[in-house]
Amino acid sequence: MPRLDLSASSLDLTRAICDIPSVSDDETALADAIHDAVAALPHLQVHRDGDTIVARTDLGRAQRVAIAGHIDTVPVNANLPTRDIEVDGEPYLWGRGTVDMKAGVAVQLKLAAELTDPRVDITWLWYDHEEVEASRSGLTRLARTRPDLFAADFAILGEPSDGEVEGGCNGTLRAVVRTHGSRAHSARAWMGENAIHAAAPLLARLTDYAPQQIEVEGLVYREGLNAVRISGGVAGNVIPDLCEIEVNYRFAPSRDAAEAEAHVREIFAGYEVEITDVAEGARPGLDAALAQEFVAAVGAVPRPKYGWTDVARFSALGVPAVNYGPGNPHLAHHDEERVPVSQIEAVERGLRAWLSGA
Amino acid sequence: MPRLDLSASSLDLTRAICDIPSVSDDETALADAIHDAVAALPHLQVHRDGDTIVARTDLGRAQRVAIAGHIDTVPVNANLPTRDIEVDGEPYLWGRGTVDMKAGVAVQLKLAAELTDPRVDITWLWYDHEEVEASRSGLTRLARTRPDLFAADFAILGEPSDGEVEGGCNGTLRAVVRTHGSRAHSARAWMGENAIHAAAPLLARLTDYAPQQIEVEGLVYREGLNAVRISGGVAGNVIPDLCEIEVNYRFAPSRDAAEAEAHVREIFAGYEVEITDVAEGARPGLDAALAQEFVAAVGAVPRPKYGWTDVARFSALGVPAVNYGPGNPHLAHHDEERVPVSQIEAVERGLRAWLSGA
Repeated sequence: MPRLDLSASSLDLTRAICDIPSVSDDETALADAIHDAVAALPHLQVHRDGDTIVARTDLGRAQRVAIAGHIDTVPVNANLPTRDIEVDGEPYLWGRGTVDMKAGVAVQLKLAAELTDPRVDITWLWYDHEEVEASRSGLTRLARTRPDLFAADFAILGEPSDGEVEGGCNGTLRAVVRTHGSRAHSARAWMGENAIHAAAPLLARLTDYAPQQIEVEGLVYREGLNAVRISGGVAGNVIPDLCEIEVNYRFAPSRDAAEAEAHVREIFAGYEVEITDVAEGARPGLDAALAQEFVAAVGAVPRPKYGWTDVARFSALGVPAVNYGPGNPHLAHHDEERVPVSQIEAVERGLRAWLSGA
Repeated sequence: MPRLDLSASSLDLTRAICDIPSVSDDETALADAIHDAVAALPHLQVHRDGDTIVARTDLGRAQRVAIAGHIDTVPVNANLPTRDIEVDGEPYLWGRGTVDMKAGVAVQLKLAAELTDPRVDITWLWYDHEEVEASRSGLTRLARTRPDLFAADFAILGEPSDGEVEGGCNGTLRAVVRTHGSRAHSARAWMGENAIHAAAPLLARLTDYAPQQIEVEGLVYREGLNAVRISGGVAGNVIPDLCEIEVNYRFAPSRDAAEAEAHVREIFAGYEVEITDVAEGARPGLDAALAQEFVAAVGAVPRPKYGWTDVARFSALGVPAVNYGPGNPHLAHHDEERVPVSQIEAVERGLRAWLSGA
């Protein structure tokens, strides 16, 4: 069984964690290694639920911070084991998981081991199944079985943010918009009604759509409304009676789910709209006192997070949360996923400085 | 093994043939029964190639007529065995194959047995795999192995034509038209280009398209250009980089394949167009002397055939050909496929009168 040496550098620890593949559904080997490494630390109370590991200090501090990271990745695509590479003279660690988000997890593990006397109590969470449906996430399961473990005054998700502090996140809504027609043999098309042709004005509404930019607590969130899938057709000689367009609306955290749904229904007025999935965003969470101290300590200029992350889950529980982790989010899921070594070290320094009160 | 009694009425023979299911790829039982029934007739020379049966008179007549019908059907959908039903007081035979085209085949078999002294030599052809790709058709195979068997001065396909004479057929062309974009995470849509959105003006060209009606030898052929399939999309959170629209162009027999292709490329100028399939139509074939005698004998007013049929195959071999068979072509492939008994009898009378010179 692989073992993790938490006294190694955060770079070496990132390399070790990435080289234990942990695609969603296959996290157990890594979860075992993490559990064994932190269970040996006397200053932490360790709880395990499936492949989710929670490790807490209990020092009676006035405040508690939750620091979380998922341990699964999207599928490997010939990009493991990791490699040390250079890009424009700068050293990088290359390979699946380096950005999303094992470098962040490595920094967290190292600090969990070394910060025996932090200025706040800390709840470390490493969880499974983030890269798949939200219903399968280790955090969803834990929120049901042990909601008490989410109690905190502030939360930091180690999702890649280029070493900057990214506040909150946009919400995301998916809907299927349908056009209907009636079938006929394509040799006698005038006997039917073509549902794919009927989608022309619907696609035109998407191309005409002007996405908004919405300021929330000083950060500007950029929205988007896009077709992500289209399908229609029965056979090569049949006029199709159905066309389905799946759209994805990314909405600023100032809108709740009901407002997002109303907006999409208004855009597609006159068409059949089925909302299939919606997750609200999270406001930046930067007005909390702890958040302001954190931002000042790491010397960051906060910016908005566009992608949905589990900060929204903490936000929904009343815990202000931000993203802070090494790696360029544009390279997440990319076949050339790679993290600058300097960002791993910078995030380690930033978190250590703030948590130790140095 | 099922046996066919060719002395039964054409209605009873239709019922018997329909109740031997013969979905494409599964025609052998019916082909065996047809072969055994006609091989017993001393006035016919019988040739078999796979599940295609050819039976010829060789009476030294000045002219020869080919009369053909396919023996396969599209899949059964809980519409066998056949049933005798009434619609608006009129008797029908209901079930898969009654229209497309076993009633036509039954009439042909009955006349093949009874017309021992026709006024022209006759080549009867019953063939497999018409309802699938043209490359698998029994006629394609026979044209390769025994092209001599296609020699004729005129051909009649027993495809359903409501008991009328339908001349020629439209051609059919399929093409895939593509739009391209570039992928990005849908949370940062502005980093990519949406290929589905790029299809909006392409669909608009289809809805704006005004199909032509083109007169060929006195018959008016109605054209059509339709999307029959559309697909695009990678995942629910990815801006799609490809959208494909399959279009089907039904073109009048006055255009050849090259003209049809040029027309489609002109309509979609500026887009990537891949021609995937093209089959030319057939001119009406009604200017041939035998055709005019035939039309006069059955007392029909010829009209155009819109769907592609094997008349085009004979036409391409220089044999003028028409469609003449019982059943409403709109009910072909329909779950409620059914043929009026009166049309079976009328087509039998029409063919018998002309072929026997009565």
